[in-house]
Amino acid sequence: MHYEQVQTNVIDDESLPWVPFTPYAENVFLKYFKLDPIRGEMIVLMKAPAGMELPKHHHSGTVIAYTIEGRWKYKEHDWIAGPGSVVFETAASSHTPQAMGGEGHVVVLNIVVGDLIFLGENDQVLAIENWKTGMQRYLAYCEQAGIAPLDLTAFA
Amino acid sequence: MHYEQVQTNVIDDESLPWVPFTPYAENVFLKYFKLDPIRGEMIVLMKAPAGMELPKHHHSGTVIAYTIEGRWKYKEHDWIAGPGSVVFETAASSHTPQAMGGEGHVVVLNIVVGDLIFLGENDQVLAIENWKTGMQRYLAYCEQAGIAPLDLTAFA
Amino acid sequence: MHYEQVQTNVIDDESLPWVPFTPYAENVFLKYFKLDPIRGEMIVLMKAPAGMELPKHHHSGTVIAYTIEGRWKYKEHDWIAGPGSVVFETAASSHTPQAMGGEGHVVVLNIVVGDLIFLGENDQVLAIENWKTGMQRYLAYCEQAGIAPLDLTAFA
Amino acid sequence: MHYEQVQTNVIDDESLPWVPFTPYAENVFLKYFKLDPIRGEMIVLMKAPAGMELPKHHHSGTVIAYTIEGRWKYKEHDWIAGPGSVVFETAASSHTPQAMGGEGHVVVLNIVVGDLIFLGENDQVLAIENWKTGMQRYLAYCEQAGIAPLDLTAFA
Repeated sequence: MHYEQVQTNVIDDESLPWVPFTPYAENVFLKYFKLDPIRGEMIVLMKAPAGMELPKHHHSGTVIAYTIEGRWKYKEHDWIAGPGSVVFETAASSHTPQAMGGEGHVVVLNIVVGDLIFLGENDQVLAIENWKTGMQRYLAYCEQAGIAPLDLTAFA
Repeated sequence: MHYEQVQTNVIDDESLPWVPFTPYAENVFLKYFKLDPIRGEMIVLMKAPAGMELPKHHHSGTVIAYTIEGRWKYKEHDWIAGPGSVVFETAASSHTPQAMGGEGHVVVLNIVVGDLIFLGENDQVLAIENWKTGMQRYLAYCEQAGIAPLDLTAFA
Repeated sequence: MHYEQVQTNVIDDESLPWVPFTPYAENVFLKYFKLDPIRGEMIVLMKAPAGMELPKHHHSGTVIAYTIEGRWKYKEHDWIAGPGSVVFETAASSHTPQAMGGEGHVVVLNIVVGDLIFLGENDQVLAIENWKTGMQRYLAYCEQAGIAPLDLTAFA
Repeated sequence: MHYEQVQTNVIDDESLPWVPFTPYAENVFLKYFKLDPIRGEMIVLMKAPAGMELPKHHHSGTVIAYTIEGRWKYKEHDWIAGPGSVVFETAASSHTPQAMGGEGHVVVLNIVVGDLIFLGENDQVLAIENWKTGMQRYLAYCEQAGIAPLDLTAFA
């Protein structure tokens, strides 16, 4: 039965590749740790170059964003998030990320529940990201790079 | 502090109106019990006429659907849900609901986490429903009907 | 991979037995629909005789309680929950259920996240209920009754 | 209404104190970022001295543990978690943490849903930790240290 395949486990940083955030931005990288096919939770590191602006997006659920390196903000808010801070994003919020500074990278651990929807200039939907598109991107990258993929969707 | 305003409470059926599912379907009615502005969970009864087909949609998170009256199915699945059954829908799934039969109504209690996205013929996004659009629809209906609205977004 | 075994499905009322709530109360019955071994969510119908008081308990997470039949209250609150009402219970709340009336049953659909902890007179812990103890009770009952058990922990 | 007080925000590392984990261990420190009084989610940094063993405990819900510094393991598992790793703990699991090494500290970001229950030698319940006990500990520490407390239970 399914519960016999469920247990507490570690996923090591070194066992996972940095996957380019294709087709949106080749210089933004994602490291997927867990992609929950039941609840839609994604645990994912994001690395973006300092100074970069990412597209405006909407979240269907919450996001917990823990900043490891660099400083960033949302265009729509006054606060700036630096290393060691926690940003808590609530369901159905939308915003435009901006990585501060001229050098280095912004590295953020994200726990994202549900869809991330990229929005255009008139808030029209451009694309939807979720555990499915994450898994497809990860599997495609592994195949291309000759890496044996892990089952990021299992809790085993 | 916020926790001082949080407590276990009841929401009575009679204290809530049946709100038409405008602008999508005037003969489909929703009774919103709770709309969580933090996590995006909606607790909502839906009543649709027997024989009706609703638009195809995608869910960003899970849905628990408990059928109270009538029988229905998804075009994409073989099973039929009848009174007393529980349908568990997983994150990033999509499907087209069909209310069975020629008479009466289908009444279903839904616990929906996140966005419901209506899809067109080529799976393009037509509209997004979530706690925000639910609250707007409820408040607009209350104003029009001369009902004092409850704060469905509070846990108090 | 795990995601290939995850899909939206129905669980029929008739496919599930009423399991006595041993060893706590032989005249209280549970019908388990889903027991999530990852997040700890339980979807379970409870049926108790009118007039009965159940032990005080604490919840680690939320409970959504939809009343199908009968009326009940918590000793610690003034409100009474009747058919069609939704009770939303918040994390780390505790209370003592009382089924109203002298005849018939109270039937409630519960969506419980995490542990239910039975408390004694001085709030000491008497027992802990969760997806694991629910699955054990269900499997033990199926074995004793000669019923082939379903995998209530799968999302398939 | 409640939703008018809900928004995406940052909580800075510097705005929060390291609170001793009284009465369990004066040399273990917690930094609480968020304590959700509705769902019971806690976002908390934990800092423990290298070489220390912490009491065995049970979790009612999931834990996501992201290691920032040091190495640690659970006595019940073979794996060791080092910097940059993610441990995903499933509902109703229990284990005994051990901080590896002889110098420095182990620092871990934890996203804990629900109760953490400390267990004795015969798995009897010694104490329960959750958003409520976390808030009490934080408020007591702030009062004693002359710090103006933040409302860690709000999403504003």
